[in-house]
Amino acid sequence: MSDPNRRPAVVEVHEGGLTVRWSDKSPMHLPNYWLRDNCRCPKCRHPGNGQKLYEIVDLPADLAAIEAMVAPDASVKVLWSDGHRSEYAADWLNAHDLIPSARDARRPQVELWGKTIESALPVGEWPQMLQDPAKELAWLDRYTALGFGLLRNVPTLSGMVAEVGDHLGFVRVTNYGRLFDVISVPNPNNLANTSLGLGVHSDNPYRHPSPGVQLLHCLEAGAPGGDTLLVDGFHAAEILRKENPGAFALLSTVPMTFRFADDKAELEARQTLITADMDGVVTAVHFNNRSADWLDAPIDLAGRWYAAYRVFAQILKRPELELVFKLGPGDLVVMQNDRALHGRTAFDPNLGRRHLQGCYIDRDGIESRRRVLKRRTTNRTDAAA
Amino acid sequence: MSDPNRRPAVVEVHEGGLTVRWSDKSPMHLPNYWLRDNCRCPKCRHPGNGQKLYEIVDLPADLAAIEAMVAPDASVKVLWSDGHRSEYAADWLNAHDLIPSARDARRPQVELWGKTIESALPVGEWPQMLQDPAKELAWLDRYTALGFGLLRNVPTLSGMVAEVGDHLGFVRVTNYGRLFDVISVPNPNNLANTSLGLGVHSDNPYRHPSPGVQLLHCLEAGAPGGDTLLVDGFHAAEILRKENPGAFALLSTVPMTFRFADDKAELEARQTLITADMDGVVTAVHFNNRSADWLDAPIDLAGRWYAAYRVFAQILKRPELELVFKLGPGDLVVMQNDRALHGRTAFDPNLGRRHLQGCYIDRDGIESRRRVLKRRTTNRTDAAA
Repeated sequence: MSDPNRRPAVVEVHEGGLTVRWSDKSPMHLPNYWLRDNCRCPKCRHPGNGQKLYEIVDLPADLAAIEAMVAPDASVKVLWSDGHRSEYAADWLNAHDLIPSARDARRPQVELWGKTIESALPVGEWPQMLQDPAKELAWLDRYTALGFGLLRNVPTLSGMVAEVGDHLGFVRVTNYGRLFDVISVPNPNNLANTSLGLGVHSDNPYRHPSPGVQLLHCLEAGAPGGDTLLVDGFHAAEILRKENPGAFALLSTVPMTFRFADDKAELEARQTLITADMDGVVTAVHFNNRSADWLDAPIDLAGRWYAAYRVFAQILKRPELELVFKLGPGDLVVMQNDRALHGRTAFDPNLGRRHLQGCYIDRDGIESRRRVLKRRTTNRTDAAA
Repeated sequence: MSDPNRRPAVVEVHEGGLTVRWSDKSPMHLPNYWLRDNCRCPKCRHPGNGQKLYEIVDLPADLAAIEAMVAPDASVKVLWSDGHRSEYAADWLNAHDLIPSARDARRPQVELWGKTIESALPVGEWPQMLQDPAKELAWLDRYTALGFGLLRNVPTLSGMVAEVGDHLGFVRVTNYGRLFDVISVPNPNNLANTSLGLGVHSDNPYRHPSPGVQLLHCLEAGAPGGDTLLVDGFHAAEILRKENPGAFALLSTVPMTFRFADDKAELEARQTLITADMDGVVTAVHFNNRSADWLDAPIDLAGRWYAAYRVFAQILKRPELELVFKLGPGDLVVMQNDRALHGRTAFDPNLGRRHLQGCYIDRDGIESRRRVLKRRTTNRTDAAA
């Protein structure tokens, strides 16, 4: 990325916008409307919360910059055709460059992982995190980069998982309630309640929206087996893109219908297995063999989609992608549900009890908590900037 | 759509799948993997909950149909190359045809609306709905088609909005708490708490996920003004697609960054203003001038995106699209937040009190409730079908 300390040297006014020339001579083009809508003056944005105080249609249709200059503090000052004056700090301009390298550098720093992460698990000691926000922030940073994290020494009390959920974000209540138990029970209404092994999957893709983050807390682990499996869905998607771009394209455009029904609920949602943004960056992976209902797609795509589906499912089974570990009592795993796919090995419920409790939280709550902790620890005061 | 009573007449086995020829001679092509993955036998799907009991990679790579026949009951029976036998009922085949007209007919029946819906508002009497599931279902059907509905005679008790939310679905807790108050308060941290008018918008597009459904309950309406505005975002999007397809394409592919920050939270999400599925069907509209933060897009798209944004914002202001009504005490409006955009006219808090309470619920809960009520009233027993 470009030098974060570079400063505007010259600014030129064109018909469609401005061109800032940096001290290193590189140009930064700024379309008129884009630039004006980024004006941060107190007439344009509420000084307290940064919300906009005008509507986009309030601006004149023929809005143009009349004059622009680089001020002694290296900010860029603009006089607009409607008489409004805007000022853009050099740091702000630097942070909002639209050239491809600058846009790439702003993307979330995602670390793809596989089996070898066994030796560097993102572990946090829950009692210490509660005492020390810096420790919690460090754990949240690892969680954010990897899409999962482990907490140790979480008290083995029923309901504790929801307390942790409400600490990190906000528990999402569903037809399962505020939390759910994963134990062996007779007459299960969901395969997770049997002792069979389960291939890796995202939970509840039949919800609208599907859960953002899952927490699973181990209360008892007396039965042999029942190890937790985790696979980085983003990593698997990147492998698919590299090895089979056509399959990646199909799975990121053609949605599967997922479905779950019991006597109390009937849930249905359509989701692509892979979600990518306009720049091709993978932002979500939903994979759930059990609740995949049917594919409502044009006939010519339906056959090809299934071939792609099988290729992706096979990648997800590669041993080098699979993290295997055993949760012990007091361990709690936090998983970004649309990235860290989870499963378990089979276990024998007759040889000991196995009891997990789980809950869901939304992504925005835990993301917000990390930003607020970061702001506090760095004494940032520009909450609304 | 084709005759729902038609029956398979003949079935042919090809290399890639089957072709069913209906009694009306029209063909239905069924790719091998697609068809096999739809097998509903008790070995393939759990008879209780319909979840799949095998993984897609368990099926052989060279899976093919060996034999197929139309049985006397008009079901299609298939023998597969791995020895498995499947049976597909005529009704199931009819309901899952992949030809374009059948796929179109299966889409949710959305009714676009504008100002003229004033004379046919989707109103339900809350006390009667609580007594009579058929009345509740009728209201839910209207809500689903229109993206909003009104409830009358909801007791004007603080917290009642969340009770209604938990009846229709599950309240989503956020950093605002379980519910929020919309009243005039000094030093607001959000523009909704002032007496200014507000252009139509979706709530909280800076959340991840953004709220699916908003409930607003009127407790007091003493102040003149403060009328509720509603605009059908799906209708506006269809107008945009017709009048300016290039603008529709930009707004449905290039995401805006939305943001909100105060001392307790820092929320940020990227969303396209219009979401369309692979068939071009609009599935969501997010519009919020106030919390639109900035557009991180390639330079050549940034200027064009703003032109499209202005065109869409102008469509949303057309008087013929705008439903205006005044909520009185005991009225409660339920709005699909990614479709029914809401706003309000200005009011003078010095001339009387105005007090609304609101909460959010997720879309899956209310959608599930409607399906379960429908199942009960039609005595459907195929919950997991």
